[in-house]
Amino acid sequence: MATSSFTVGIVGATGAVGQELLRLLLEREFPCARVRLFASARSAGKRIERGGQVFTVEEARPGVFAGVDLAFFAAGGSVTRALAPDAVAAGCVVIDKSSALRMEPDVPLVIPEINPEGLRQHKGIIANPNCSTAVMLMGLWPLHQAFGLKRAIVATYQSVSGTGAEAVRELDAQVQAYAAGRSIESKVYPHQIAFNCLPHIDSFGPDGYTGEETKMAQETRKIMGLPALKLSATTVRVPVVRAHSVAVSAEFERPVDLDVARRAIAAFEGAELVDDPANNGYPTPLAFAEKVKCGVGRLRRDTAFDNGLSFWVSGDNLWRGAALNALMNAELMVRQGGL
Amino acid sequence: MATSSFTVGIVGATGAVGQELLRLLLEREFPCARVRLFASARSAGKRIERGGQVFTVEEARPGVFAGVDLAFFAAGGSVTRALAPDAVAAGCVVIDKSSALRMEPDVPLVIPEINPEGLRQHKGIIANPNCSTAVMLMGLWPLHQAFGLKRAIVATYQSVSGTGAEAVRELDAQVQAYAAGRSIESKVYPHQIAFNCLPHIDSFGPDGYTGEETKMAQETRKIMGLPALKLSATTVRVPVVRAHSVAVSAEFERPVDLDVARRAIAAFEGAELVDDPANNGYPTPLAFAEKVKCGVGRLRRDTAFDNGLSFWVSGDNLWRGAALNALMNAELMVRQGGL
Repeated sequence: MATSSFTVGIVGATGAVGQELLRLLLEREFPCARVRLFASARSAGKRIERGGQVFTVEEARPGVFAGVDLAFFAAGGSVTRALAPDAVAAGCVVIDKSSALRMEPDVPLVIPEINPEGLRQHKGIIANPNCSTAVMLMGLWPLHQAFGLKRAIVATYQSVSGTGAEAVRELDAQVQAYAAGRSIESKVYPHQIAFNCLPHIDSFGPDGYTGEETKMAQETRKIMGLPALKLSATTVRVPVVRAHSVAVSAEFERPVDLDVARRAIAAFEGAELVDDPANNGYPTPLAFAEKVKCGVGRLRRDTAFDNGLSFWVSGDNLWRGAALNALMNAELMVRQGGL
Repeated sequence: MATSSFTVGIVGATGAVGQELLRLLLEREFPCARVRLFASARSAGKRIERGGQVFTVEEARPGVFAGVDLAFFAAGGSVTRALAPDAVAAGCVVIDKSSALRMEPDVPLVIPEINPEGLRQHKGIIANPNCSTAVMLMGLWPLHQAFGLKRAIVATYQSVSGTGAEAVRELDAQVQAYAAGRSIESKVYPHQIAFNCLPHIDSFGPDGYTGEETKMAQETRKIMGLPALKLSATTVRVPVVRAHSVAVSAEFERPVDLDVARRAIAAFEGAELVDDPANNGYPTPLAFAEKVKCGVGRLRRDTAFDNGLSFWVSGDNLWRGAALNALMNAELMVRQGGL
């Protein structure tokens, strides 16, 4: 496209990620000539005000993408499957947040700081990683570049906003009920999430892993270009509103050095090194909500591996894990002239 | 001792673990002729009612242990160091909850279902493990017996009651402040704990590991009798009131079999197998607070190791991780005639 200012669509504009996308599009001054918001028929006609502008939500359906240069899809896998081919056929570039197409061989799965080359190889659709994967890789990728990743064992501490706005409301309602001495009800999650931890994110597969755990392994292999990487994950929902954290133990091919590791993380543009334990300095989800970078800290030699490092990373699941990653992919495409 | 009913002391009787000890002593009908409660001078004279009896707190100081057959120490390492030798000199058996003496070569560190032989080898003092270690081992030990443990990587989700009653009050106060729209204050923890996760339990060592993480490795080696075991831990405080959880990835010497693993856990008296993911069946801290057994579930082949298993365990840190383990050690000593 020869234009320098685009017609941009957001599909799933009324959801948690869609709302963050609209906010970031305006705050980061993406070159939009026009922004169109799409959602289900139920939300069509709804008016949303952001940054002094009023947007009217349109129904997401075949045919609406004519004239749309770039569409962010943030409405779940079924909407992507139903509408992304139509958007591509209309000449629109699709940047998809859902998991529907991430593992398709001809769909690049891109974190712009890690594998930007995918942005030049797309066939109309670019996928974005799962939120936990994206946050974890802000620590794992620079260490891989320094020492060569061989194996990783990870456990997550994931916020309820990863489930969606209804889960944020459920945690709030449960905490309000607790404070008022009322009984606590659970609808979004199968068990109470306030004051609890649920080792259950996405549905369970026949191998006993959840979809979230399988995604973390598969997507990491694809993004890092390490198809044989050994990775096991335990993904856990915790009563945090926003930002995911991941405890990572990683084994490397080459001998590790803590100073080199710290420099590699500090130099990586996706990470902020927060590693001053003597002064209680380490990342927390509260501190990294609504932050562009992910916090990496608690860096130490892993005592279970010969060439091992352990670390802790916290990052905003709605930003780095979703809306921001998608937008940064678009921003890079603009800079590369690919849009 | 020839008596069948004992004079039992609780040192640190006004703390969170001390209170659970008193409750469990009465509920489990430990053969007490008399229970004496000891605490700091500040609490001396305080009256505590439990099970229809009124106990008056005495000051814990040298000389008070004359006539005490068995004393549970639950007042922290400095009190154990100051007073346990005095108690032993007075002929008292000390069952210590603190970390002060756990790694002393002549102090057995005992989980009664795992290494009860330690109860016959003591020199007056028996140590109890760290709460996270005890909970983790309810899953790890039966699997070790089945397959031979080689390596473990663990991440914890620890409740605030592990810090003490003041931390339970802090989480409550922060949640109440949130519900009322007031600003949130942190005194017990260096950062807000409500809606947050802190990868920081105990103080940091020069190797970057916290005391809690180092304890999990060292104590596991001692209790399991595996001095060369490779174990790395990341210990994390989460906004849960009671019961700790641990995500475990373990590598074994011998090929693993999931059916054998499930049977081993189900047959182990410290564990309850809760592993029915299709029906949202897995342990949670809320479900295993105030439970004698620890819940083990999410059992699956670990995808990072050839002979690996992953699992999730939740258990009551104040019971299995402290008061109950101590009391069960005493109960077994009584049955063995060692008291």
